[in-house]
Amino acid sequence: MTDHTESIRELLARIRKEDAAVHAFTFIAPDPEHVDGPSAEKPLGGLAIAMKDICDTADMPTGYGSKIYDGFQPPMDAAIVTALKAKGAFIPGKTTTTEFATSPPTPTLNPRDTRFTPGGSSAGSAAAVAAGMVKIALGTQTLGSVIRPASFCGVVGFKPTYGWFPTAGMKQLASSLDTIGFLAADVAHCERVYRALVPDDETPKVSKPKLIFSREPNWHLTAPDAKAAIEACIEKLKGLGVDVTDGKMPEGFDEVNLAANVIHDYQMHRSLAPEMKRAREKIAPVLADRIDRAGRWSAEDYRAAIRVVEAQRLAFDAFMKTCDGVLCLAAGGEAPLLELGVTGDPMMNSSWTALQTPCVSLPALAGANSMPIGLQIVGARNQDLKTLFIASFLEGKLGLA
Amino acid sequence: MTDHTESIRELLARIRKEDAAVHAFTFIAPDPEHVDGPSAEKPLGGLAIAMKDICDTADMPTGYGSKIYDGFQPPMDAAIVTALKAKGAFIPGKTTTTEFATSPPTPTLNPRDTRFTPGGSSAGSAAAVAAGMVKIALGTQTLGSVIRPASFCGVVGFKPTYGWFPTAGMKQLASSLDTIGFLAADVAHCERVYRALVPDDETPKVSKPKLIFSREPNWHLTAPDAKAAIEACIEKLKGLGVDVTDGKMPEGFDEVNLAANVIHDYQMHRSLAPEMKRAREKIAPVLADRIDRAGRWSAEDYRAAIRVVEAQRLAFDAFMKTCDGVLCLAAGGEAPLLELGVTGDPMMNSSWTALQTPCVSLPALAGANSMPIGLQIVGARNQDLKTLFIASFLEGKLGLA
Repeated sequence: MTDHTESIRELLARIRKEDAAVHAFTFIAPDPEHVDGPSAEKPLGGLAIAMKDICDTADMPTGYGSKIYDGFQPPMDAAIVTALKAKGAFIPGKTTTTEFATSPPTPTLNPRDTRFTPGGSSAGSAAAVAAGMVKIALGTQTLGSVIRPASFCGVVGFKPTYGWFPTAGMKQLASSLDTIGFLAADVAHCERVYRALVPDDETPKVSKPKLIFSREPNWHLTAPDAKAAIEACIEKLKGLGVDVTDGKMPEGFDEVNLAANVIHDYQMHRSLAPEMKRAREKIAPVLADRIDRAGRWSAEDYRAAIRVVEAQRLAFDAFMKTCDGVLCLAAGGEAPLLELGVTGDPMMNSSWTALQTPCVSLPALAGANSMPIGLQIVGARNQDLKTLFIASFLEGKLGLA
Repeated sequence: MTDHTESIRELLARIRKEDAAVHAFTFIAPDPEHVDGPSAEKPLGGLAIAMKDICDTADMPTGYGSKIYDGFQPPMDAAIVTALKAKGAFIPGKTTTTEFATSPPTPTLNPRDTRFTPGGSSAGSAAAVAAGMVKIALGTQTLGSVIRPASFCGVVGFKPTYGWFPTAGMKQLASSLDTIGFLAADVAHCERVYRALVPDDETPKVSKPKLIFSREPNWHLTAPDAKAAIEACIEKLKGLGVDVTDGKMPEGFDEVNLAANVIHDYQMHRSLAPEMKRAREKIAPVLADRIDRAGRWSAEDYRAAIRVVEAQRLAFDAFMKTCDGVLCLAAGGEAPLLELGVTGDPMMNSSWTALQTPCVSLPALAGANSMPIGLQIVGARNQDLKTLFIASFLEGKLGLA
């Protein structure tokens, strides 16, 4: 243990107290002695990072949101847990995830307004940050599970480029899409963690980013208040002297959303087959049915979907040579009402996940119910630091930080 | 249980007896009652598939070749285990893997000649097939861990296109490269399993495949007897009327080998960090040192490596529009002597793994010590059945089946 002991004790007590109303956590470390990792001398010295319960922890039970794994204690930390601890961070507890990071909703409430869903699958991490219990929490995104709950809960979401943060020890859902990200109080916390994990990445130099406002994907499915909110925000940014112009995504971009879903389904149907075979009765019927239906795509559907996303990755790489970032909605509207029993639609996220781009959601917009909606910044693949820089720039311009 | 009970009992007894001399298995099912899955009515009705001990099995201990996981019993089968059982196959036991599918060698002997290594990391699966204990066994390839041991043990190896067989529940090494494959007595067994797992894939129509003989990668590092053996084989094929001509790989192909190693190292260093942190003393020093050294690549090295392999995948896709398959060596020579304490070099495999192409190794060649060397058939990405067809065609021409 370190000299952080007392502050960790206070944090854990505060989380325990506040979480009674939010239900963001599945497990909270009982005391500072139980906490592994904090080290003041390291880049993340003593930072508390709440951990989505889809990642293995050797000293905390790991349930993957499933009754099948109730009380399961993995023998080893997930690679990302080790990486964060190695940089001086610590894990105060595990946050709720929808079942295997899919559906149905968790018991977590949205701290902005408990009548609405916090989103999913990273519901607990988004809510823990929104409630102020932690400054940053880990989430994972396979379709829209980081950016969407960030949007619904009014926090910053960061989905890095695919493949940078190790997924070993994270419960696999769809290996071509599974991406580890973060939910945070501000962009600075995301950048701090990114720099700790990728310390030798070069610093981007963008004094005046050239931005494109995109009404794609799925503008036709977007709620009118969300449309109005982002259009007003874009006008505001222009008024502030930000270089942002309307643009169209590359030819064929509109095929990516379905392709992402086909890849997701094809892989998820196979990844979760062991649980379906051994313990189907412990899987929520809505999910079991979804896994069944996910088996409907043929080998040729899957092959065609891979062709679409590979071609569109290159098209978007080329597009990104003409600008520094794309601005679009992080969700199709405000959080749905809790009573609807859903976590919302990933329609603004699936395409970007499949294209592997870094995405940041800023709590910059609001809808008809005064609930938050995220402004999404999409960057070029493998330019995460630059994308975070642009998000930080906009966060400042919009007075969010 | 089914009417297979007696034949399974006999098989298990035979494996137990023969394995005393080969050490291909880490665990053998104690009796037919312990065996889950066989079903005569299904496509793999009663087929015994030995399982590399890098994949979780809920009813057999799973050690990943590591002292850290000695006696570990996962709660769930790996997705590929479930998929094979669902098609009527059964798992008679677990086969040796090098530590976390890397190094050092396993205790397994090469059934062709015990003075030589069986290769790795899928040593037990290759040896179990070579010794005739099973007709087919599962292997995994991250650099060269299916095709190389197939070459050394004189069996058929099949590494499918990346991404088709689910890796959930397989111990992750390098997620961008980890590929599940098979070692088998003949191509027909690989095709049978592939068709069972991907039943709706279309049948290829290639009456007279157009083949290219490639001296790449790494001809300059290849043993003279291996060079002579494949050149003689190509001449023989030409004499048999097979359409095979010399060819050069696309511009830049020679960069792929290093890029594959950078991606492997960057990801492996992070994937195995939990074990290094918690139980380094239980990791073989040669591997711990290798994991340490794998951390030497920078973020920019990793990014550049991704760029290389993505560009070369497209270049090879284009190249494959000019032919049906590429023929090259499956290994740089015969199996090294056991006393050298190595499992051989994946230099003929890493490039193809990174390019995600289907690869088949046929036991068609022999070296100076009369030990087998594989003839490798490389196909276009996502054309696995066509590649298996070409392998089967050559197997017939060369009188191997």
